[in-house]
Amino acid sequence: MPVGEKRLIQNIRRWARRGPTVATGIGDDCAVLRVPRGHELLVTTDFSIENVHFRRDWHSPEVAGRRCLTRGLSDIAAMGGEALAAFLSLAVASDVPQKWVDRFLKGLLDLANEFKVPLAGGDTAQSLRGMQADIVVIGSVPKGKAVLRSGAKPGDFIYVTGELGGAAAALAELELAESKRASVRLSGHVSLSGRFSVGSSRHASKGPQPRLAVGQRLRLRGVVSAMIDVSDGLSTDLEHICQESHVGAEIEAEAIPQALVRSGKRVGLEFALHGGDDYELLFTSAAKIRARVAEVRVTCIGRIMHSGGMRLIDAEGKARRLKAGGWEHFRGNL
Amino acid sequence: MPVGEKRLIQNIRRWARRGPTVATGIGDDCAVLRVPRGHELLVTTDFSIENVHFRRDWHSPEVAGRRCLTRGLSDIAAMGGEALAAFLSLAVASDVPQKWVDRFLKGLLDLANEFKVPLAGGDTAQSLRGMQADIVVIGSVPKGKAVLRSGAKPGDFIYVTGELGGAAAALAELELAESKRASVRLSGHVSLSGRFSVGSSRHASKGPQPRLAVGQRLRLRGVVSAMIDVSDGLSTDLEHICQESHVGAEIEAEAIPQALVRSGKRVGLEFALHGGDDYELLFTSAAKIRARVAEVRVTCIGRIMHSGGMRLIDAEGKARRLKAGGWEHFRGNL
Repeated sequence: MPVGEKRLIQNIRRWARRGPTVATGIGDDCAVLRVPRGHELLVTTDFSIENVHFRRDWHSPEVAGRRCLTRGLSDIAAMGGEALAAFLSLAVASDVPQKWVDRFLKGLLDLANEFKVPLAGGDTAQSLRGMQADIVVIGSVPKGKAVLRSGAKPGDFIYVTGELGGAAAALAELELAESKRASVRLSGHVSLSGRFSVGSSRHASKGPQPRLAVGQRLRLRGVVSAMIDVSDGLSTDLEHICQESHVGAEIEAEAIPQALVRSGKRVGLEFALHGGDDYELLFTSAAKIRARVAEVRVTCIGRIMHSGGMRLIDAEGKARRLKAGGWEHFRGNL
Repeated sequence: MPVGEKRLIQNIRRWARRGPTVATGIGDDCAVLRVPRGHELLVTTDFSIENVHFRRDWHSPEVAGRRCLTRGLSDIAAMGGEALAAFLSLAVASDVPQKWVDRFLKGLLDLANEFKVPLAGGDTAQSLRGMQADIVVIGSVPKGKAVLRSGAKPGDFIYVTGELGGAAAALAELELAESKRASVRLSGHVSLSGRFSVGSSRHASKGPQPRLAVGQRLRLRGVVSAMIDVSDGLSTDLEHICQESHVGAEIEAEAIPQALVRSGKRVGLEFALHGGDDYELLFTSAAKIRARVAEVRVTCIGRIMHSGGMRLIDAEGKARRLKAGGWEHFRGNL
């Protein structure tokens, strides 16, 4: 085993917090977990691949690591579940600095500790190029109580937590800055360094919060008919609910909570409609839900319809067809 | 989502068998699994990376897929558990033919069906180069009954199932054939094709069997003090037992079951001692175990000692120090 891999395993063993759900953690053929009595199990896996899901020159290692685990925790939240343990399969090529890997792991484990989710195992491997991380989160939910995508009924209200489009807008800004730098380099000028600060963008900030408390609170109230996390973008994830529930949807453009960016402006509607990686919860309910759940803002953005696909109503009340156009081309959750 | 990824997800949905343990399978944020009452959960993850764990020019896609799942099932076997469901995270670059991916998946799902393990979810993603697959297997075992690596006691007998070294010997043969072809090409001769048949080697044959039935039978008898699967090689995996149990070990060279290869000869001792990827079970017991368990040969190869590391006793009774020298440089299970 290369020195880097040994150190990686040592660091994971040292930094990973134990938890009461883990009977046997790192260091055996399998981890042994205790599942709360009367609960069913939730399992989700998410690949984070360098230059597909994150870039070492765009994202700080801590943010990339944090985001890797956020994806898994957010899936547990979308079922109304609680997280029992996380597992990390990590493949690293020799061209990735050990320091970067250590900081990636720190970012991931900081979030794990924040949510008291023990890292109970995984796998390490050599990669031929870059870094690939597969995060597995195991959760649980009382038997029969998991909130699925398939329960939305015509007439239900459609709600979303927090604000949308922030992550996609920050990414677009990074892309723009890069193309500017490239064109400046091509035209022979000096680099634009300093004009664009990665440190202040959302993609480089602490990053989104998995909405575990909101998801659990909503499940406990028993009023949510369907739920999903907004990882691929509102339009794509709403389509998933429509497809699994065999319904249509109508949403109001003006109602969609558009994220505030550091300039003090709101992101454009397209970012809020189609941008991914926000990890907010999108859910439906026959009941009126109050404006804050577990200290997170909740907004009603539309209604579930009998059929007719998805429609977007503009400020003048005119309807146009809404097509799924999110980030799904980057990934496909099974 | 690229066409290839859509087709991949369709194929997984079409080919994956449902099972009674899966309350909600592919198509939601998480899979929902039922855990047998009074059972604890087993979780294992294993990365299979192209050109690290398999090569497209050496392994048939079916064998690579089958081996990918074998690694996970074998870890469940080593705890004495039963497998509840598998999850596959699969990243594929555009240079990997769709046909190859389909056949990889077929190989994996054939084994899953053989062992009645439903594929209940996972993730698909684009890769920038080659293919990376992370297999997650969830299993269960009655509470407190998981067979760990840490229970070996001085005086215990050391046993191994099946035969060892076959996979490593086949791999060495492939490496030799490749270097021969390379040197022939360099000296201007025609290719050696036909001299080496990949189809008849162990690495290209159906591949090893995960020893689930043996592991469960041994756990039920309650006589096994420690168990591990031989994935990294006998010397490395025995060292894992010694380290976790704080004991030493003495094994007899003549007792080690050396795999039969197609020439009718046995593999060399070094292959049986240090070769990986055999997926047999290595276990310790204070009791004499009969020569066949669940129709699989079981061989006593030595004894657990108070300390003194690992020693190998040769045919003349002379002892030498045995150092772990398996395949661990390729991978590091957490």
